[in-house]
Amino acid sequence: MGVLRLSHAEVRVPDLELALAYYVEVVGLVETGRDEHRAWLKAWDEHQHHSLILVDAPTYGLESVGFKVESAADLDELEVAVRAAGIETHRPGEDELGKGAGEVVRFRAPSGHTVDLVHGMEQVGNRLPLLNPPVGLDDLTGMHPPRIDHIFLMCEDVDGATAFFREVLGFRLTEQIIADDGYQLATFLERSHSTHDVAFLTGPDGGFHHVAFWVDDWNDLRHAADTCAYNGVNVDAGPTRHGATRGCGLYFFDPAGNRNEVYTGGYRFDPDDEPTTWTESEMGRAIFYYQGKVNPSFMTVHS
Amino acid sequence: MGVLRLSHAEVRVPDLELALAYYVEVVGLVETGRDEHRAWLKAWDEHQHHSLILVDAPTYGLESVGFKVESAADLDELEVAVRAAGIETHRPGEDELGKGAGEVVRFRAPSGHTVDLVHGMEQVGNRLPLLNPPVGLDDLTGMHPPRIDHIFLMCEDVDGATAFFREVLGFRLTEQIIADDGYQLATFLERSHSTHDVAFLTGPDGGFHHVAFWVDDWNDLRHAADTCAYNGVNVDAGPTRHGATRGCGLYFFDPAGNRNEVYTGGYRFDPDDEPTTWTESEMGRAIFYYQGKVNPSFMTVHS
Amino acid sequence: MGVLRLSHAEVRVPDLELALAYYVEVVGLVETGRDEHRAWLKAWDEHQHHSLILVDAPTYGLESVGFKVESAADLDELEVAVRAAGIETHRPGEDELGKGAGEVVRFRAPSGHTVDLVHGMEQVGNRLPLLNPPVGLDDLTGMHPPRIDHIFLMCEDVDGATAFFREVLGFRLTEQIIADDGYQLATFLERSHSTHDVAFLTGPDGGFHHVAFWVDDWNDLRHAADTCAYNGVNVDAGPTRHGATRGCGLYFFDPAGNRNEVYTGGYRFDPDDEPTTWTESEMGRAIFYYQGKVNPSFMTVHS
Amino acid sequence: MGVLRLSHAEVRVPDLELALAYYVEVVGLVETGRDEHRAWLKAWDEHQHHSLILVDAPTYGLESVGFKVESAADLDELEVAVRAAGIETHRPGEDELGKGAGEVVRFRAPSGHTVDLVHGMEQVGNRLPLLNPPVGLDDLTGMHPPRIDHIFLMCEDVDGATAFFREVLGFRLTEQIIADDGYQLATFLERSHSTHDVAFLTGPDGGFHHVAFWVDDWNDLRHAADTCAYNGVNVDAGPTRHGATRGCGLYFFDPAGNRNEVYTGGYRFDPDDEPTTWTESEMGRAIFYYQGKVNPSFMTVHS
Repeated sequence: MGVLRLSHAEVRVPDLELALAYYVEVVGLVETGRDEHRAWLKAWDEHQHHSLILVDAPTYGLESVGFKVESAADLDELEVAVRAAGIETHRPGEDELGKGAGEVVRFRAPSGHTVDLVHGMEQVGNRLPLLNPPVGLDDLTGMHPPRIDHIFLMCEDVDGATAFFREVLGFRLTEQIIADDGYQLATFLERSHSTHDVAFLTGPDGGFHHVAFWVDDWNDLRHAADTCAYNGVNVDAGPTRHGATRGCGLYFFDPAGNRNEVYTGGYRFDPDDEPTTWTESEMGRAIFYYQGKVNPSFMTVHS
Repeated sequence: MGVLRLSHAEVRVPDLELALAYYVEVVGLVETGRDEHRAWLKAWDEHQHHSLILVDAPTYGLESVGFKVESAADLDELEVAVRAAGIETHRPGEDELGKGAGEVVRFRAPSGHTVDLVHGMEQVGNRLPLLNPPVGLDDLTGMHPPRIDHIFLMCEDVDGATAFFREVLGFRLTEQIIADDGYQLATFLERSHSTHDVAFLTGPDGGFHHVAFWVDDWNDLRHAADTCAYNGVNVDAGPTRHGATRGCGLYFFDPAGNRNEVYTGGYRFDPDDEPTTWTESEMGRAIFYYQGKVNPSFMTVHS
Repeated sequence: MGVLRLSHAEVRVPDLELALAYYVEVVGLVETGRDEHRAWLKAWDEHQHHSLILVDAPTYGLESVGFKVESAADLDELEVAVRAAGIETHRPGEDELGKGAGEVVRFRAPSGHTVDLVHGMEQVGNRLPLLNPPVGLDDLTGMHPPRIDHIFLMCEDVDGATAFFREVLGFRLTEQIIADDGYQLATFLERSHSTHDVAFLTGPDGGFHHVAFWVDDWNDLRHAADTCAYNGVNVDAGPTRHGATRGCGLYFFDPAGNRNEVYTGGYRFDPDDEPTTWTESEMGRAIFYYQGKVNPSFMTVHS
Repeated sequence: MGVLRLSHAEVRVPDLELALAYYVEVVGLVETGRDEHRAWLKAWDEHQHHSLILVDAPTYGLESVGFKVESAADLDELEVAVRAAGIETHRPGEDELGKGAGEVVRFRAPSGHTVDLVHGMEQVGNRLPLLNPPVGLDDLTGMHPPRIDHIFLMCEDVDGATAFFREVLGFRLTEQIIADDGYQLATFLERSHSTHDVAFLTGPDGGFHHVAFWVDDWNDLRHAADTCAYNGVNVDAGPTRHGATRGCGLYFFDPAGNRNEVYTGGYRFDPDDEPTTWTESEMGRAIFYYQGKVNPSFMTVHS
């Protein structure tokens, strides 16, 4: 109990119309709401109101990140735990969050990110009937990932951010990259028995590396890459394999410069499994398993 | 909390050597233990001591089924809950269960199956190093599924078995097939946010329909089918898609007559998602989505 | 030289509008021409005017089958060869064949099928530009196979039909199924170094078993099966593997009752390779490699 | 008629034992012969004696390239055509070529490469029986491509080399990259109705860019990349898509520095299809469709 999984990312874009066109037509998300400054979107197979919020802003970056909590009681307990860690929380209302956002506990994590714990977000369904449904829809466009998967954040003190997410929010460490001086360069943390719901990478506090949507297999990654090329979208890396998580992914950028990933694979992680460790010298292989080195832009572009 | 996932199946085989050869060479499981009457096996990527136990018996069938519990405290709580439901439990020792089985609460479910709740099974690892590992092993044989996925049981009173698993063990209903007379013909239940960790199908009490191992994609299902054909293993159905769960699978039989499945796909199920319902007239499509009808042997062969 | 590959199939349908809707929306072919009694279609990546002709008729079946010939000189030579075999030929004009059909030599093969040898069919292109093209189109519907692959015909004297196609038309035998009495039950013949451009199966003279369109991989076969189920199209068999040819396929029926296949895989066949032989007792595995037996409808439904 | 397809590449390696270990264990080719200075290998599903010859040499590079010719008469005709083009030919004997090489016409092409036209190479089979075979073998190792696919050569005058291969050897142009000054930067030529059996890229005369082996699908490319990483083999690029040919490939190096590719996909090319043209500004996309630019090593490493 407690945190169930990543719920959503709220992402800054300077041109809301352009970003919306990209996320709907190229990525293939579904628009579920709009106001003057924001647009709400979900992946096609998600039942909840949104997994991505686009918000008008002067530049790109992450406005907030949301994690889904299993019950209202869990939300209360987690709120107590966050406050016990010396961090202020508040519960923004519908006027601030928009319609259907559910009950939210908001706070600023030690990594500098605004974190929302969410319970009871409105369910809008996936357009499949609950009686005798087909296995999918035939009118999806673009990459059409079925759901959000994980988020990759940057901060100066990865050890500290990781400790907070483990000790206060109950996340489990699955993999880590350790610098030669002993500090954590990157950590992978889960609540959903996947390889990571959230990960931290050394960088500026509040930094946003990428948000990843799940696709079902390696062929879908090629389709996503073909879709990028067809639409003139800048591919950053992939399709490739990650050594860390064993998952496969494709990185590319939205029109504002926010990095997106479509991701598949990885393994199931049980609470009593041991985390995997990568040394600094093998960091290249941990991230890009085939090339064995990280392209410089991968570490320097963030927001 | 509570039940984490399916842990293992204990399956009866009249010829232990023959069955062992099949599960190791054709299915590609790893032998982790032997005594006079039993053999313990695990899938290659599992860390725990076993996910399959073969036990010498006059005929095929299911001896017991185990579910993994997250903590010792959960085990205690579930034991109390089962007893509160009027069902006797006991905790078999290592002499009965064999080495490394962990702490077990055993009872007979209303469906007639012997159920083990397990915590603390010995971890034996997956042969990948915990430091800078490759993404896999290059010496796997047969179908080599990475892990167990779900079990399909038969009983006379599916409604009753389902109610027990939901109310006492905390499982959630994801899909159901409802007879014209209103009874449940089949139910799909999960604890791991997958489409099913266990399912019930109408049939004789204590009946065993199949145990399923996970494979990573649709290509692996073809490889599994090729492996069956290469080794003269009887394919029952597939590779095909299930309407219920949207997953894809291949059914075949071990040398004793126990049905196996390799399975992939399906969707993520959240606790606040609504279950899907199939009517009796659409049962064919629920099980075999492409052919739209169930081959008679699928419903009649069991044990 | 000589015959290059299968060019097209002309298929009888009692309801032209219904058949056309199916071939365009479900199979995903492109309509390239219409007259009162016929419709011409092509697969999306074909450059030629058509690979399928639908013709109004009281019942289903094959009206004619066309093979593409590399040059006009080849057409002349093949015409001489057919006549030398004692078979009459004629060259139907555009008034009979419709616009863009190219130069055609028509005759009745010993198997009872009307065969067209074609050269110079109009090229209509695949909608990709010839300058800096993308790798595909993003507006395809249904199964959207890129091209036609092979045709499976029935006749009483498979040995005789095979001898004619080898000796007169220059086809090469890749595989055969031999009855216990020594006759050929089925033969696979190629001109394009694939496993078969045409095949013969024992049955009534002039019989039509199926026409197959190529898809690129095993995932596309699943997509085709999903498309059948979504549209209520009757799946006859598959997705499965054939022992003969090693290819994988899915069989289903058009609204008129003509069997279609989408097919992928197989191996390259060189002129100096030896054909593969299947015995009658292994015919099940030759056709349905996984199940090892042929469902009765597969042998009895034809036209 | 005439040239049927690429037959084999003869590749220079300074350390024959090391190269042989790599091609057998990592690539998964089969050794079919050895003498003091050479080793012969074939892909598992090829019937012919070899598709790769390793030859002891001070450095890496291409010693010769062989094309398979359909008949002895074709070999004679092509020999006449080559001589008519003012190029000397000779027919090396078994003492020079080794056992089983067949009848060979050897000459130096205008591009500076030693070209062998081959007919009647010894058939050694693929280990599958000709009677009731399974669809594959279960003891293959490494990437185990079923066959050779194409070769990529470098020369100063791509226009001239292309003209020679088209006019004298009968190849057909499928795609070309044209420099702003009108010269051909790269050309793709076929005889087997694939997208290319041979290609030319601007560079030093006699240059060897890569030899490619066929794999059956996109999943096999990932397996090949995993195999590279597992064995510490340097991946140059991919898995990726090429804009030119639409095929997908993975580039890597043998221990001597010869570039290898495993390749899949592409389309069927008919003799009356129009070639596709890429402009110099789109060369990046023609070669690496997703990244849209060519990594510098791709153009500069050759031999």
